[in-house]
Amino acid sequence: MTKIRKIFTFLLRLLALAATLSATIVMVTSHDSANVLNLTFKAKYNNSPAFMYFVIVEAIVSGYNLMILSLASKGSLWRVVIILDVVVALLLTSSMSAALAIAQVGKKGNSHAGWLPICGQVHKFCNHVTGALVAGIIAAALYFLLILYTLYTVLNPLFVVKP
Amino acid sequence: MTKIRKIFTFLLRLLALAATLSATIVMVTSHDSANVLNLTFKAKYNNSPAFMYFVIVEAIVSGYNLMILSLASKGSLWRVVIILDVVVALLLTSSMSAALAIAQVGKKGNSHAGWLPICGQVHKFCNHVTGALVAGIIAAALYFLLILYTLYTVLNPLFVVKP
Repeated sequence: MTKIRKIFTFLLRLLALAATLSATIVMVTSHDSANVLNLTFKAKYNNSPAFMYFVIVEAIVSGYNLMILSLASKGSLWRVVIILDVVVALLLTSSMSAALAIAQVGKKGNSHAGWLPICGQVHKFCNHVTGALVAGIIAAALYFLLILYTLYTVLNPLFVVKP
Repeated sequence: MTKIRKIFTFLLRLLALAATLSATIVMVTSHDSANVLNLTFKAKYNNSPAFMYFVIVEAIVSGYNLMILSLASKGSLWRVVIILDVVVALLLTSSMSAALAIAQVGKKGNSHAGWLPICGQVHKFCNHVTGALVAGIIAAALYFLLILYTLYTVLNPLFVVKP
């Protein structure tokens, strides 16, 4: 039973690592330029604080995940890992939501605020951002699953003894 | 010891309820209008999907918190409550981050995308949004503290017996 649990957790972390790495790379490599009224208009991820925050969090979580995967067999730190996993899930959700909010304005604009959509001009940039966001959403979902599974297995033994 | 834990958790929830209720009310009551080039320009929270998401989450969490506080003495559902608390913390963080990202564009604009700041025109609206966001950040921080404390108390007994 514990072996199945370990394999499942390992697989979830491996998939999450793939997702966060993809999100980082796809977002960092996103750039495009367009000519509007003789002005060259360059779009890059670091033009938006929300996208920069997204890249930083996805990169940090990739590193964290790699570290945990390489330490997988040592079980003495598992309590700290549970708490760190919750922190990581919160960071992933936060950065993904912020980037998604900005991407929504980029795609649809906001007529009330007078912000025009930019995806018509920088189509390639928008496609990259969309790809990175999908990877970011998958990473956040995998971490959510990981936490739920960990909590379930941690709380499960206590179903017998009432605290 | 269990009594101190209950009182502390109750207080955290009560403070979180105050914060989410304030965030909801302050955001919903935020509206302002300005005249720019003879056009009346109205700012309301429901002009932005991110702000609407923020209001919906803060209102739902207020209701959830009120329900949990009224059920506080019944301890049989505590495992479900731990998992729900994690979901609520993720929702709070997500909505707060999305609203914060949009508010940042509202305040500073984004010259690269050609989005102008709007806070100069609708000062009252921006103050309301700032107030709501501060309350939202406090609510998310209180929930983070609540989860950390719950995890600590749940994991603590297991420090003796290795799983």
